[in-house]
Amino acid sequence: MVDIATRVYNHKWKIDPIIRSLIDTDFYKLLMCQSIFRNRPDTVVRFKLINRSSDIRLAELIDEGELREQLDHVRGLSLSRGESTWMRGNTFYGKRQMFRPDFMAFLEGLRLPAYQLEKRDGQYELTFEGKWAEVMLWEIPALAILMELRSRAVLETLGRFELQVLYARAMTRLWEKIEALRKFPDLRIADFGTRRRHSFLWQDWAVQAMIEGLGERFTGTSNCLIAMRRDIEAIGTNAHELPMVYAALAETDAELHRAPYEVLADWQEEHDGMLRMILPDTYGTDNFLEHAPDWLAGWTGIRIDSGDPAEGAEAAIRWWRERGEDPRDKLVIFSDGLDVEKIIELHRRFHGRVKVSFGWGTLLTNDFRGLVPGDGLAPFSLVCKAVAANGRPTVKLSDNPAKAMGPGDEVERYKRVFGVGEQIRQEVVV
Amino acid sequence: MVDIATRVYNHKWKIDPIIRSLIDTDFYKLLMCQSIFRNRPDTVVRFKLINRSSDIRLAELIDEGELREQLDHVRGLSLSRGESTWMRGNTFYGKRQMFRPDFMAFLEGLRLPAYQLEKRDGQYELTFEGKWAEVMLWEIPALAILMELRSRAVLETLGRFELQVLYARAMTRLWEKIEALRKFPDLRIADFGTRRRHSFLWQDWAVQAMIEGLGERFTGTSNCLIAMRRDIEAIGTNAHELPMVYAALAETDAELHRAPYEVLADWQEEHDGMLRMILPDTYGTDNFLEHAPDWLAGWTGIRIDSGDPAEGAEAAIRWWRERGEDPRDKLVIFSDGLDVEKIIELHRRFHGRVKVSFGWGTLLTNDFRGLVPGDGLAPFSLVCKAVAANGRPTVKLSDNPAKAMGPGDEVERYKRVFGVGEQIRQEVVV
Repeated sequence: MVDIATRVYNHKWKIDPIIRSLIDTDFYKLLMCQSIFRNRPDTVVRFKLINRSSDIRLAELIDEGELREQLDHVRGLSLSRGESTWMRGNTFYGKRQMFRPDFMAFLEGLRLPAYQLEKRDGQYELTFEGKWAEVMLWEIPALAILMELRSRAVLETLGRFELQVLYARAMTRLWEKIEALRKFPDLRIADFGTRRRHSFLWQDWAVQAMIEGLGERFTGTSNCLIAMRRDIEAIGTNAHELPMVYAALAETDAELHRAPYEVLADWQEEHDGMLRMILPDTYGTDNFLEHAPDWLAGWTGIRIDSGDPAEGAEAAIRWWRERGEDPRDKLVIFSDGLDVEKIIELHRRFHGRVKVSFGWGTLLTNDFRGLVPGDGLAPFSLVCKAVAANGRPTVKLSDNPAKAMGPGDEVERYKRVFGVGEQIRQEVVV
Repeated sequence: MVDIATRVYNHKWKIDPIIRSLIDTDFYKLLMCQSIFRNRPDTVVRFKLINRSSDIRLAELIDEGELREQLDHVRGLSLSRGESTWMRGNTFYGKRQMFRPDFMAFLEGLRLPAYQLEKRDGQYELTFEGKWAEVMLWEIPALAILMELRSRAVLETLGRFELQVLYARAMTRLWEKIEALRKFPDLRIADFGTRRRHSFLWQDWAVQAMIEGLGERFTGTSNCLIAMRRDIEAIGTNAHELPMVYAALAETDAELHRAPYEVLADWQEEHDGMLRMILPDTYGTDNFLEHAPDWLAGWTGIRIDSGDPAEGAEAAIRWWRERGEDPRDKLVIFSDGLDVEKIIELHRRFHGRVKVSFGWGTLLTNDFRGLVPGDGLAPFSLVCKAVAANGRPTVKLSDNPAKAMGPGDEVERYKRVFGVGEQIRQEVVV
């Protein structure tokens, strides 16, 4: 029976909104936002969309009017009472009241600030400039909107049964991945796929499939809205934007070299346990670990997000041993370009030597490779990065030069300060 | 939004009925029913369920209570006003009023007669005895109920996402078959898969996929309910039960030999055009064609339902030539154990030499092979046949001894009368 009221109500929507909640974002953005709100409330940052896959000409695929409608819709969102209650009342990593009352008040009053949008060379130039704690919350919705508008543009051309079979194929593929992973009872894996997901509904399906298929192997999702709705753990810690902005603000080379540790000193004041995760690769992992203060070796673990993941984990194990720590008490989270084969390979290699966990991203929530003619739904490498702080450019080196960013002279300066020599270029999968 | 009223209403069903309409049956059953109602109104026939796949122990898989509930539900059905209107008003093969008023009055008043059900050796003995025109309408619902209860028994064990992925895989498989077939613009194919379908909803999905994927290559469905709902052509002509019962009633060997032609003489009085289709294999195609009266060569075509299909079509082509007919004006319908490879092979071989059409059955509506552990959803060979008429046993020989049935001595007598020698045994796929 058709529910006429529902159908009529649905007709009243002017658009089909991609982002329908301010907490349809990664948990670590909220954690970092709180840290920034407390430690760097006045820093002005510019975030910018960067499409590393320049062959995907987004401005030709996606209508500018539709893009503006979706972005404007996000600007109209505010934290709902239920979302606020969830953030205030939830237990994250076993700890209550992770979000302080002054931060919650700020977040409850927040509307996302204005954006700047232009077309150039078949791409969108999309920038967000303003107070760091505010503009930084644009990153995930902006990425998710562009990814999903691109999906919609391609899906537009398909018939009803072609669509059904497309999703049937994608579901089958994902379920086969899950079936491969469930063979490993000690595996621990989370969804990190919000930013480059095929669509919200697809990410939500993927999470439910992981819940049913992996049981306790599945540790949660980075997406707060899905974590709330599906009653599972919200997962995440911190990201490159913190050291990148702290570094950009440094006045001297010595301050610059200290900046990545200063970030973590601020973090340590606020968080303990599972949230004390080191992301060491912003300016090269080797140098970071070599010069790290001893208190960092006491942290819970390391997230490996660029470079060869096995080498990164071996480096971390060596480092812990040198600092007198037992690697078996430490956690290594792999989160760069993962798919099933790599996950299984890394699990086999490191399981038992360290605690291992996986943050599975784009190939969990957007593996539509080969499913339409011309491969128009294959995921691509879209990022939204802090490119300037208080007017100074940011720099990222990472352990993979394909992921480096920043003005050439600044990149050279950072390489000198952080002692980064030749790096091995690795293809950025997604 | 949940429609509370719908949900409460759904709770009121005591069972989830498999057959919800008297016209959820094959079109040819209704055509034959009309012919029997007119020509053999007093013949008493016994139909019996025969599971040729004895390794599928239906009585252990399917609860007797549930089976009785489903069969009882069918006995409560009667032709609805809309169904009657569709039968009275529809154009079948371009012809109106195919069903005569006296037959429609009979059908509108009909309730299906009682059944006899017993368990024996892990199988159900299910028989229907009574007036031929009434009990013959049990065949399709009885088969569809047993097939679907068996599907349900196996599906019972699967989780929610396993179910979704199961159907995702089945849909993908079927769509790939359709994509293979759509490469042939001159192909003509219909759904003949009601009796051994996985479920009603699955057959309905398959038909819709054929509509979208094959366009005018798809000529219709044998299922009247689906034809009505999807606004497509209902397809079918006649089946083995007619010659089998006519033959069983024959008093002498000479009458026996004449019986298959007598059936068609009765048929010719009632129908012309697309309905004048010969089903020659009941007692061996070669003998049938050799002794056929000349007027049969003027009929529209031949349906090939056993034996090697290419040989059968070659025999028909030779026969038409011998009788002075141009095979290019004639239609050959293949309907035995078809899947995509065989369909394409036969299309390539005969397209242009005769008009070719395909009646695609079980591997259209029930190809779940290999999709669950233990292959518990693979289709199997269940039939429901007229086994006696006015107390005399029926016999079927066909062009494949694996499909033969009847008491041994009667089979021998029929073989002698119809001059059937050695036959090549072919595995019955489904």
